[in-house]
Amino acid sequence: MFDKDIYIQRRAQLAKKVGSGLILLLGNDEAGMNFKNNWYPFRQDSTFLYYAGIDLAELAVVMDLDTGVTTLFGNELTIDDIVWTGPLPSLSELATQTGIEQVRPYSELATVLKSAREKGQKTHFLPAYRPEHILKLQAWLDVAPGESVSSASPGLIRAVVAMRSHKAPEEIAEMEKAVDTSNDMHTYFMRALAPGKNELEIAGQLRAIAIAGGGDLSYPTILTSRGETLHIHARNLSLPAGALALCDAGAESAMHYAGDLTRTAPVSGKFTGVQKDMYQLILDIQLATIDACKPGVPFSEVHRLSGELLLEGLKSFNIIKGDAKEALALDAHTLFFQCGLGHMIGLDVHDMENLGEQYVGYTPDQPKNMNFGWKSLRLGRALEPGFTLTVEPGIYFIPTLIDLWKAENKLSDFINYQELDKFRDFGGIRIEDNLVITEDGYRILGSKMAAKTVAEMEALSPEPL
Amino acid sequence: MFDKDIYIQRRAQLAKKVGSGLILLLGNDEAGMNFKNNWYPFRQDSTFLYYAGIDLAELAVVMDLDTGVTTLFGNELTIDDIVWTGPLPSLSELATQTGIEQVRPYSELATVLKSAREKGQKTHFLPAYRPEHILKLQAWLDVAPGESVSSASPGLIRAVVAMRSHKAPEEIAEMEKAVDTSNDMHTYFMRALAPGKNELEIAGQLRAIAIAGGGDLSYPTILTSRGETLHIHARNLSLPAGALALCDAGAESAMHYAGDLTRTAPVSGKFTGVQKDMYQLILDIQLATIDACKPGVPFSEVHRLSGELLLEGLKSFNIIKGDAKEALALDAHTLFFQCGLGHMIGLDVHDMENLGEQYVGYTPDQPKNMNFGWKSLRLGRALEPGFTLTVEPGIYFIPTLIDLWKAENKLSDFINYQELDKFRDFGGIRIEDNLVITEDGYRILGSKMAAKTVAEMEALSPEPL
Repeated sequence: MFDKDIYIQRRAQLAKKVGSGLILLLGNDEAGMNFKNNWYPFRQDSTFLYYAGIDLAELAVVMDLDTGVTTLFGNELTIDDIVWTGPLPSLSELATQTGIEQVRPYSELATVLKSAREKGQKTHFLPAYRPEHILKLQAWLDVAPGESVSSASPGLIRAVVAMRSHKAPEEIAEMEKAVDTSNDMHTYFMRALAPGKNELEIAGQLRAIAIAGGGDLSYPTILTSRGETLHIHARNLSLPAGALALCDAGAESAMHYAGDLTRTAPVSGKFTGVQKDMYQLILDIQLATIDACKPGVPFSEVHRLSGELLLEGLKSFNIIKGDAKEALALDAHTLFFQCGLGHMIGLDVHDMENLGEQYVGYTPDQPKNMNFGWKSLRLGRALEPGFTLTVEPGIYFIPTLIDLWKAENKLSDFINYQELDKFRDFGGIRIEDNLVITEDGYRILGSKMAAKTVAEMEALSPEPL
Repeated sequence: MFDKDIYIQRRAQLAKKVGSGLILLLGNDEAGMNFKNNWYPFRQDSTFLYYAGIDLAELAVVMDLDTGVTTLFGNELTIDDIVWTGPLPSLSELATQTGIEQVRPYSELATVLKSAREKGQKTHFLPAYRPEHILKLQAWLDVAPGESVSSASPGLIRAVVAMRSHKAPEEIAEMEKAVDTSNDMHTYFMRALAPGKNELEIAGQLRAIAIAGGGDLSYPTILTSRGETLHIHARNLSLPAGALALCDAGAESAMHYAGDLTRTAPVSGKFTGVQKDMYQLILDIQLATIDACKPGVPFSEVHRLSGELLLEGLKSFNIIKGDAKEALALDAHTLFFQCGLGHMIGLDVHDMENLGEQYVGYTPDQPKNMNFGWKSLRLGRALEPGFTLTVEPGIYFIPTLIDLWKAENKLSDFINYQELDKFRDFGGIRIEDNLVITEDGYRILGSKMAAKTVAEMEALSPEPL
C-alpha cells in the first residue's frame, strides 16, 4: 500500500471530477475454480486498488460526494475465521492506513444504496466485468444483467480514465519493478531454449520467477514455436530445432502493476539467414516506432509508421511490390500484422480495458477505426507525459489468412503471393518493450533489458540444468 | 480425453439413475481476473469433464432422457477466431470423440430449455458455484439467484455422487500421475528448505513442477513456518532457522485429477528433540489411521481414532492428563486438531464439494456432526472399494484458540494448560497421503513417495542452486 495521503488525494480529485451523488467502487470476490472455496489466486479490482489500496476480497467502498464521507463495507474476521487464517489486520486498521473514515458491515451496503435511490441520489458505478458484479448490481441497484456495462456512469469512467492514464512517480517505480522481473523471465526463456525442450516446462519456470518476484503473472504466458498464432498459450509440446520460439510474458509487481514483454528467439541458439533478416526488420521497426513516441504524437500514427516500415521492408523479401505508402493506404500490412502496435499498461496489462477502449485509447474526436487490423489497435490517441504503454511490432504468417486473401487475389498489385508461399510456415516474430512518455520523449521502463539484438541473443549462454 | 465408450456408458448410467426430464450439465466459462479477457487458467467443471470430457470454455450439454438424445451446445470458431487461435478441432469433432450425437449453437440453449418448461418437462441441474452459472440459471430457468443451490435436483446430485465416488481403473491411473507429480513437488520442497529461504520462491518452483507435469496446481499452495494456521498461503517471508515448515500442495494431472499431499520438515534440515518427538507422534497416527481404512469402516471412526491416539500421545508431553477416551468423548482433541482427518479426492481436490457435503461425505442415516472440529470433517460415511481419499492427521497449536479455552478453563481435568503454554509457539504439523480403498483394504496412491520418516527426511540432500 502507498502512503495514505496518496489515496486521500486521489479520492478528493475523483470526487471533484464527478461532482455529486454516490460513487460505488466494487472490490472483487474470491473466484472458485471447480468449487466455491477452491480459489484462483485473488486479484483485486484495479480501480479499487487505485483509490482504496486494500488487497482483500469482498469489500466495497462508497464515496458519498454530497456528505464527503467515504465508507469501507466489509466483514471483520470472527474468532472462528482466525482459527483458519491466523491473526490479520482488522478492516478498521486497513481503512485507517488508506485514510477511509469508517467501516460498516457488508450487509449494510444494500440498505445504503437503496436509501440513496429513494432520496434520488445517483449512484455512479463502473462497467461490470465479473459475473459477481453483475449479480450485485442487479440485487442492489436493480440493474438488469444485460445492462451492467451500458448503464455504468460515463462521468465516473471519464474521471477514472483521466487519472489512471497519467502515472505518478510512485506508480512508475512499481512498473519498473514489474518490468525488471519480466526481463528476468525473458532472459531465462532465451537461455532455457533448446531443441526438444517442453513449452510447459519453460512456462512453469517463468511463473516461478514471477511468483518469487512477489507478485504473479500479469497475463497467461504465450510460449510457442507457432508465433503467428496470436493467442496461443504454452502447451505440452516440444520446441522443434530450427524454429523460432515466441514468448509473450510478464510479471505483476507485488502491488499489481504489470510488465508485458515479448522476445522471439531461435530454439537452437542461432538464427538461420532468413530468420535473421526478418528478425532484424522487426527489430528496426521496433526501434523506429519507440523513437517516434513523444507527447502530442497520436499513437495511431506510430502504428501507421510500423505498417509502412513493414511493407517497405518486405520489398527486400520480394513479398511486397510497388509503393509501400499506397499499399499501406489499402491496409496491405494487415495480412502480416493483424493486431495493434501497442496499448496502455499500468495496474492492468491492457490498462483499464474493463472501462472501455473508446474511453481509454481514443477520444470523441478520434473514434476507433473498425477495419480489420486497425480494430485491434487499443490505443490511438495522442500520447501525453505519464502515459505508460507497450510497443510491440511483429510479423505473423497465418496460413488460414494467406489462403483467404490469395483465394480473393486481394491487393495482388502489391502482394506477391508466389513469393509469400515460401514464408507460409515461417511462423511469427514479435518484439515488445514498455515505455513511459516523458515531457520531451520517452523512457524505456526497467533497470535492465533482456537481450534483443541478434548478437546479444546469440551470445547468451544456455541455462544450466 | 478417455475413449468415447467410457463417456457413453457414464451418460447411459446417469440417464438410468435419473429417469426422465432433461439433464443440464453446465460447463465453466473463462474467468476474467482484472478485465474480461485477462483470464485465469481455464478450469472446466469436473462433472462436465466426467460426463462430456471436453476441456473448453462456454459449453453446455443437455441430455434429453425422454428422447435419449444428448446435445452439445457451443459456438464453432469463425475465421476471425482462427486468426487468433490457430486451427483447432471443431466442436463436432470433439462431440464425436466423446460420443455426443449433435452440436447446436449456444444461443439455442435458452429456447430449448424454455420449450421444455412449456411442455412440463423437468430440467435437472446441479448446485451453482460460479456466479456465471447463477446468471445463466436465472436467465434460462427463472431460478432466483438466492436459490441456485437449493433448487438443484437432489436426484441428479445423488446419481452423480454415486458414480463419481467410485473411481474406475482409468481414473485411478490418472490419480497416480497427479500424486506422482505431487510427490515430486514435496521432494523439491524438503530439499529446497534452508534458513532465510523465501516462501514464495519455493512456492513458485512447486507451481513450475505442477505445470511441467502437464496440469497445474490442484489448489493454492500452503507453505509456511506457521503451520498451525490452517488456511495460510505462501507469503513473501523468509523461513526462520529452527522452525518447522509445513507444505500442503498438490498437482492436477493433465486430465484434472488431483493430488493433495502435506509434508512438514525442519527448515534447518534436522529436527530438534521435541520437534522429532511430536513429528513421530503425528507420523504414528498417520500410519495407524491409514491402516484402519478398509471397506465398511466409517471414516468418522477413523477420524475418532486419530483423536484418541493424539490425546493418548500428548500424555507423554504432559499436555494431556487422565483418560484419553474420556477426554475424546468431550472433544478435548479439537483444541489441537480442529479440522478433519481427510476427505474424498478425485476430479476435485475436495471431491464433489460443490454438490454438497451431506451428499458426498455423509448419508441420511449418518448426518454430519456440527460440533467444533467435527463440523470440519468432510467425510464420515463408511468406506467403499474405489473411494479415493486423503488421510492427513496433524497437530496445531493456535495461540488464539488456546487463550480462549484457557480463559474458560475448558476441560481442565484433561488439559494441563501450564505445560501447554510451553508449546504455544510450536506451530503445526500435518502429514498427508492419498489412498484408494480396495476390496480388502487400501493402497497408497503414487508410484513413489516423498520422504516421510525422520530418518528419510534428515537424509535428504539439499537442492542444488
